[in-house]
Amino acid sequence: MRKDPRRRDSAAYPFAATLEMRYGDMDVWRHLNNVAAARFYEEGRIRFMDDLRKREPDYAKQRFRLMVAHTAIDYLAEGHYPHPITVGVGIAGIGNSSYRVGEALFQQGRCIGLADVVLAHVGEDGPAPLPAVVRETLARYLLAPLPEERAG
Amino acid sequence: MRKDPRRRDSAAYPFAATLEMRYGDMDVWRHLNNVAAARFYEEGRIRFMDDLRKREPDYAKQRFRLMVAHTAIDYLAEGHYPHPITVGVGIAGIGNSSYRVGEALFQQGRCIGLADVVLAHVGEDGPAPLPAVVRETLARYLLAPLPEERAG
Amino acid sequence: MRKDPRRRDSAAYPFAATLEMRYGDMDVWRHLNNVAAARFYEEGRIRFMDDLRKREPDYAKQRFRLMVAHTAIDYLAEGHYPHPITVGVGIAGIGNSSYRVGEALFQQGRCIGLADVVLAHVGEDGPAPLPAVVRETLARYLLAPLPEERAG
Amino acid sequence: MRKDPRRRDSAAYPFAATLEMRYGDMDVWRHLNNVAAARFYEEGRIRFMDDLRKREPDYAKQRFRLMVAHTAIDYLAEGHYPHPITVGVGIAGIGNSSYRVGEALFQQGRCIGLADVVLAHVGEDGPAPLPAVVRETLARYLLAPLPEERAG
Repeated sequence: MRKDPRRRDSAAYPFAATLEMRYGDMDVWRHLNNVAAARFYEEGRIRFMDDLRKREPDYAKQRFRLMVAHTAIDYLAEGHYPHPITVGVGIAGIGNSSYRVGEALFQQGRCIGLADVVLAHVGEDGPAPLPAVVRETLARYLLAPLPEERAG
Repeated sequence: MRKDPRRRDSAAYPFAATLEMRYGDMDVWRHLNNVAAARFYEEGRIRFMDDLRKREPDYAKQRFRLMVAHTAIDYLAEGHYPHPITVGVGIAGIGNSSYRVGEALFQQGRCIGLADVVLAHVGEDGPAPLPAVVRETLARYLLAPLPEERAG
Repeated sequence: MRKDPRRRDSAAYPFAATLEMRYGDMDVWRHLNNVAAARFYEEGRIRFMDDLRKREPDYAKQRFRLMVAHTAIDYLAEGHYPHPITVGVGIAGIGNSSYRVGEALFQQGRCIGLADVVLAHVGEDGPAPLPAVVRETLARYLLAPLPEERAG
Repeated sequence: MRKDPRRRDSAAYPFAATLEMRYGDMDVWRHLNNVAAARFYEEGRIRFMDDLRKREPDYAKQRFRLMVAHTAIDYLAEGHYPHPITVGVGIAGIGNSSYRVGEALFQQGRCIGLADVVLAHVGEDGPAPLPAVVRETLARYLLAPLPEERAG
């Protein structure tokens, strides 16, 4: 993630939520604790999903369970209290039975971290293929590509 | 991580700490929340480091700051309250100015998750090479290799 | 607290901060966890104090340490995700070497909880009298009295 | 609470659980955060209740919901990482439709805090009287009285 400059650009994320940092998010080093940062990615992801269900009635009708299968976080800079944190969220990849959410945290105008979260689509008997309507909906919320890629 | 069966074996980890799961670690799904799981990896890593400083006086004399640069977590199974969780910790790789900690969570005899944490060694002017004594000490706490590898 | 209807009126609190509720603030019952509610009172109190230091330069010059000696919380109604929570904060009482902060949580237009927090003023040798400037400053941020009391 | 020396004596509590303190329980002051302390009281209370259901089959058959109506905490001393914390729990009072749990935190042999938690018994239409079997069971787990009181 950290090698891709697009990921540090807030314009790349189709969804964003701004959240208060809390005193309790700091650890003994007086900056945003690493685990507390994970809480911001969780919150951004859940708000993005809630927003998706409101905007996309066909998607909202689907009944399935998603499980977090993998998370990866790049810590780029320290977060500082009490400045609010904006979480940018979008779809980073769509697989057969899972998809990848790409996220970034912004504080005071700079990107302080990046995350990728793999969500697995689980049916009665374990991993199950993503329904077509889910795939089509998610494809409308992809992280914005670079101008060069758009041209390509 | 998840593709390497050694990582799911508690015997591979040179350090382990057993911690109580708390009611507050559950989320609305009644299982160990993903972010709460990250708290267990944090705790395991810090206890491993404290243990290292007690066992290794030359390492303990070193003055440097470590920053979490990257974390990756594989979620393998749900964690359940109120069973205690054992965190296994060891060194997964030693680089020039950073090293990688490998961790696993075990509950009720099975591995429920794996984590890799990259810690960057930071001096006055940013990333700095790991001192020889640090490299040598860490090398004594590597994740145990497979028997075949030992033979190789 | 709960018997005093003034305490449930947001207009009684000279300071207020609105904070996002987080998914992680819920417990297995899908409502605001009791301990998570305590986090909101902590955040409100700290933001009130920070605001005080900005508004009151003479108070801000004072050097002293405050310790939380006692907290009491009344839980009046369940809090629900994802509605923001407003914390009202004011001074509920000024003692010799401590003072009492009164707080309330409001969500969706109703009061869901009340808290009293006793902060002890600690000097080098334990509890120490509040300096005159601290007492005078705090007296300007008292919870608003009832109309009858104002008349009295 | 803090004026009653019995409450600081671990022998007074019929139930106790020892829990690891976590690095993340510290705040910027490097001691046990006030809200994190509330997490220990919550955990102690829930483990006490689980233990009660195992020991008391007649109590365990009862179906009712308990809601936390009020908590009060006295902070007596700072808690320090990484020493384990023992939570003592017992019944401090039994009312008509609620009861009071008394708790204490002990670390390194001293009492660092006390809590009282009022749990309200809630039926279909709001507060409901505690069934006789609940009252009788709880009465067997009262905080131990002083020897003088026993004699009285």
